[in-house]
Amino acid sequence: MKSSVAVVVLAAGAGTRMKSALPKVLHPLAGWPMVRHVLETVARLKPAKVVGVVSPGAKAVQVAFAPYPTVVQAKPLGTGHAAKAALGALKGHRGPVLVVFGDAPLVTAATMRSLLAACAAEKAAVGVLGFRAADPTPYGRLILKDGELERIVESKDAVGAERDVDFCNSGVMCLDGALLAALLGGIGNDNVKGEYYLVDAVAVARGLGHRAIAVEGDEEEFQGINSRSELAVAEASLQWRLRAAALESGVTMTDPGTVWLAADTTFGSDVTIGPNVRFGPGVHVGSNVEIKAFCDIEGGRIGKGAIVGPFERIRPGSDVGEDVHIGNFVELKATKMGRGAKANHLAYLGDSDVGAGSNIGAGTIAVNYDGYGKYRTVVGADVFIGSNSSLVAPVKVGKGANVTAGSVITEDVPAGAVAFGRARQVTKKGRAAPLRAKLASRATAAKRAKKKK
Amino acid sequence: MKSSVAVVVLAAGAGTRMKSALPKVLHPLAGWPMVRHVLETVARLKPAKVVGVVSPGAKAVQVAFAPYPTVVQAKPLGTGHAAKAALGALKGHRGPVLVVFGDAPLVTAATMRSLLAACAAEKAAVGVLGFRAADPTPYGRLILKDGELERIVESKDAVGAERDVDFCNSGVMCLDGALLAALLGGIGNDNVKGEYYLVDAVAVARGLGHRAIAVEGDEEEFQGINSRSELAVAEASLQWRLRAAALESGVTMTDPGTVWLAADTTFGSDVTIGPNVRFGPGVHVGSNVEIKAFCDIEGGRIGKGAIVGPFERIRPGSDVGEDVHIGNFVELKATKMGRGAKANHLAYLGDSDVGAGSNIGAGTIAVNYDGYGKYRTVVGADVFIGSNSSLVAPVKVGKGANVTAGSVITEDVPAGAVAFGRARQVTKKGRAAPLRAKLASRATAAKRAKKKK
Amino acid sequence: MKSSVAVVVLAAGAGTRMKSALPKVLHPLAGWPMVRHVLETVARLKPAKVVGVVSPGAKAVQVAFAPYPTVVQAKPLGTGHAAKAALGALKGHRGPVLVVFGDAPLVTAATMRSLLAACAAEKAAVGVLGFRAADPTPYGRLILKDGELERIVESKDAVGAERDVDFCNSGVMCLDGALLAALLGGIGNDNVKGEYYLVDAVAVARGLGHRAIAVEGDEEEFQGINSRSELAVAEASLQWRLRAAALESGVTMTDPGTVWLAADTTFGSDVTIGPNVRFGPGVHVGSNVEIKAFCDIEGGRIGKGAIVGPFERIRPGSDVGEDVHIGNFVELKATKMGRGAKANHLAYLGDSDVGAGSNIGAGTIAVNYDGYGKYRTVVGADVFIGSNSSLVAPVKVGKGANVTAGSVITEDVPAGAVAFGRARQVTKKGRAAPLRAKLASRATAAKRAKKKK
Repeated sequence: MKSSVAVVVLAAGAGTRMKSALPKVLHPLAGWPMVRHVLETVARLKPAKVVGVVSPGAKAVQVAFAPYPTVVQAKPLGTGHAAKAALGALKGHRGPVLVVFGDAPLVTAATMRSLLAACAAEKAAVGVLGFRAADPTPYGRLILKDGELERIVESKDAVGAERDVDFCNSGVMCLDGALLAALLGGIGNDNVKGEYYLVDAVAVARGLGHRAIAVEGDEEEFQGINSRSELAVAEASLQWRLRAAALESGVTMTDPGTVWLAADTTFGSDVTIGPNVRFGPGVHVGSNVEIKAFCDIEGGRIGKGAIVGPFERIRPGSDVGEDVHIGNFVELKATKMGRGAKANHLAYLGDSDVGAGSNIGAGTIAVNYDGYGKYRTVVGADVFIGSNSSLVAPVKVGKGANVTAGSVITEDVPAGAVAFGRARQVTKKGRAAPLRAKLASRATAAKRAKKKK
Repeated sequence: MKSSVAVVVLAAGAGTRMKSALPKVLHPLAGWPMVRHVLETVARLKPAKVVGVVSPGAKAVQVAFAPYPTVVQAKPLGTGHAAKAALGALKGHRGPVLVVFGDAPLVTAATMRSLLAACAAEKAAVGVLGFRAADPTPYGRLILKDGELERIVESKDAVGAERDVDFCNSGVMCLDGALLAALLGGIGNDNVKGEYYLVDAVAVARGLGHRAIAVEGDEEEFQGINSRSELAVAEASLQWRLRAAALESGVTMTDPGTVWLAADTTFGSDVTIGPNVRFGPGVHVGSNVEIKAFCDIEGGRIGKGAIVGPFERIRPGSDVGEDVHIGNFVELKATKMGRGAKANHLAYLGDSDVGAGSNIGAGTIAVNYDGYGKYRTVVGADVFIGSNSSLVAPVKVGKGANVTAGSVITEDVPAGAVAFGRARQVTKKGRAAPLRAKLASRATAAKRAKKKK
Repeated sequence: MKSSVAVVVLAAGAGTRMKSALPKVLHPLAGWPMVRHVLETVARLKPAKVVGVVSPGAKAVQVAFAPYPTVVQAKPLGTGHAAKAALGALKGHRGPVLVVFGDAPLVTAATMRSLLAACAAEKAAVGVLGFRAADPTPYGRLILKDGELERIVESKDAVGAERDVDFCNSGVMCLDGALLAALLGGIGNDNVKGEYYLVDAVAVARGLGHRAIAVEGDEEEFQGINSRSELAVAEASLQWRLRAAALESGVTMTDPGTVWLAADTTFGSDVTIGPNVRFGPGVHVGSNVEIKAFCDIEGGRIGKGAIVGPFERIRPGSDVGEDVHIGNFVELKATKMGRGAKANHLAYLGDSDVGAGSNIGAGTIAVNYDGYGKYRTVVGADVFIGSNSSLVAPVKVGKGANVTAGSVITEDVPAGAVAFGRARQVTKKGRAAPLRAKLASRATAAKRAKKKK
């Protein structure tokens, strides 16, 4: 059931310190665009409405907000101005309005809920999330009095005892929807930059005789992202959350700090992960799977009991069945490996189906691309593909067939057949010496020629 | 010469927070099952006896204790009960009895010795290893009086000044063997859980008029392991010990935190290791070896002056000779490379012997498996194996032979011979355009067919 | 324009704690020999002269100093003695003489300049760089009085209030060139080791009625390197400087701590780097390049818009053109990839030129070496090289040609031609069963034979 809260996500900031052509809120974190983390978090509040505020021309940001609607802040005139841009979209909404930031993806749903609950309990017109800062210097301070939020002092304006206040403004706010137009409308721009600051809603509310409160959250959640360094810090925060959850659920990681997870990675029980494993989005790992060191896995399922890696790459659309073994320097792309199938050494399996119990020899290539189209290779169950073979798709190798090492397979192989496509060995006794003499003299001549140049 | 100490290793804990089907003490650390670290450490005390206490049905744990005997604690009734289970196995033992934990693998032999020495010097019936805790909250406190251990206060029972005591109980104890039955026999189970706590031996001893003492060790050594997170923390502790020893011995590591060692990894002098190298158990690295970034090495010897990696995998049973070069995307398994041999690019050498000075071309596969048996490939000295060749084992290539690129070698090649097994090139002028037209139209048709579905 | 400063770089230390045959100042940091960092830093002062002081027989160190001259300190009699060895080389120099250490590569040019500026401003005969030490215990203390450096107290000689002084001696000094001979000449060796300590120049100067001063720098800059552990710590310091600069310039790194840069790595804008990427010396990365996880890149250019990795190795002499795609398990060595060319899977391209728009199939090997000489493979534009092909160099494949999968190409392929060099497939129906029966019985026999041995 939906709650009565509406959420405004401010995502119109320029992000110039990112030095990037990509809008800031689209920079990826744990495999998702930054703003998607915010949207997934607010979705857990089951909000009645979500509205994004974006800058003009930010098509890609609007796409990232879908299915939520966005409004455009025509000019960058501050957070109060941005929130006001959402007024139309919130017309008729009477419940609380939570204002969050697209570039602050670490705020948890629990913290948002605690703000909403406190505003409801205390009948506050405005609620602000604050945090105790290790170093409050750069932040606005929340000045409390008799349990209410009296005012917010900008960092540069803090004097005397205010400087010692370590309770700081996160920017995240909850406004009473019934008062929204009045609160936002009351914010002025009588300041150096001539901008409208959302934080001034506190003064407006109090001026109108309403209550304002502040609720404490954890500093770590309020990290903003304004540069690539801060992006990396936020990524690390998210990664440690994801790793802690995986460890807690019974995943062993030799060195958790070298396992990179995506926001949606899921694990069964008794999974073991070696050092240096990267998960892109869309991976489910079944129980009793062992993922060895140095793997890169994205967009695929790994079945129970499978052994993967080291030096394995799994690309989107892959489905690794139960008890499958995938070894070193093997790439799977949009490939399904049936139960107990093996591809243990140096192979490329692209657009392939490999049947249960089949063995793919070292150096095998599924030749899925001819320069124009991509085709599938279908290998039945219990097939043995000899090493260094090329399976030129589209091609089928039937159940129980054998392909001998070094073969180029261009035609379908029926079930139970043996196929080969390689030249017979010819051995010339005593010919190595004259061949080597020829090669050596060619090398000498080549070096001489190079020198002359 | 054996000492007079007997060691009881408690390893019957359930480890439910590990959320694992594998018994806790068998979870691996630095390449060994956890309990093996404890056993290797106590072995350095040259104990007269070692007895493991395991839970019923823990066959795999008993195997891990071998050759040491184990006794079964029939029910999980506490550490005192567990220690009592070992009484029979210690019958007639009069020397000190050290009780350690299978899930506390970081305690050093030096610390154990300091406890044994103090107990002997002070004629203590009971000695306890303690540590100064950064945060003592979760631990039992050791209350000293006049140089003796007066009592141990459980964390939850600590009141007043006891709460400020930061000297905490590690659980590791030394008991006088002559008093063992009396000390353990005196422990009752008059507590909430109805369990027998080994720590109560302190009160029993003092009640019988004997001395109890406490000896301080380092907190880091007493980390227990109850969850996957704590397992990862212990792994990190062990890794930093191993890395520090390697650095001290003259190994350069670009980034030591990204080198994972096994407990038994050994190094010669002037070894250089790039970032991201994992050593499994059983590796010896000779002097002047350079291991480049991204290698995974397990169960093998690397000879003096060898250059290995990046992206190299060496599997058990391999022996890399002096001055050998192994390059990227190469896998060795149970393979011996003679002095100065080279395999620099994308190759699988499994179950192979490569003679001194031989060169294995890029893309070479030793075809060691036919679906039923595994066979060896034997390459003599000074052989040149052309790129993309397949050596179908069992097969021998004699000294000084040449195998040309792209060959499938199924028969032995005599010394000094040239062998090839590949088709002659055929070139059809002007045929690329019609071929491409055909491929393009096939691709178009395939796309159209897909859309119709 | 050159400044009036001369720099003496002391590099004659034995470095025994490194336990290495390699002279300490040649151990690499961020891809350069340690001393080169010092030389590059002092070069930024545009010095009139640079002189290295090396130990006898240290040819390799002299080479590392080139084009700067070196003098030999005949015996290891202390830093004062070492500095004196440079007197001849500085004959006639009247400007300031900066004395720095070849094993302290983290001191920045800004810090050196601040010392030079202070000495000039205060007309000091001697200036010393000091730092506030977190733990001053091991260091000599700088005792100031009335803004002058009164004396330096050796750590072991510090008594009373001197022990609380945390302003410590870095060893880096600036001496008045006009007084150089007098200052160095005045240093005696009346101490336990009978050595000449450069630090005594302070007392000499003051004894002669000149001023001595101390200038503060950051402790992090004065890390000395005496062991492999300290080498690793210095490497980490340098890496974080390089990473911070890259992040600041607009490079995204998923996990900056797992990106290893060389001192000379350069980046365009909007570059994205996944976890675990190592850059050796000599790499330039263009704008909008994406480097995925697990890459090792050295000595090459990567053009705008290229996508590289994961599991990619690029070796010196490579030139990856704009919009090129290089995928997993691919090695480039001295290879040029033209605009938009692709080599996406398991390939070795050594000594090759690949034309714009060409596609190199999976498993392709450029066979550049025949055991004697190395030759180039030249692939024209818009060529399609089928998978698992071997291109035996020297060989040319002309524009728009097609090479079919699994071919061994030994002769040039004209533009627009189709070339193949592979056997035709033969399929034997129903033959898998008898073949498998034969292989199974061979395996059984082999196992039996093994047992008998």
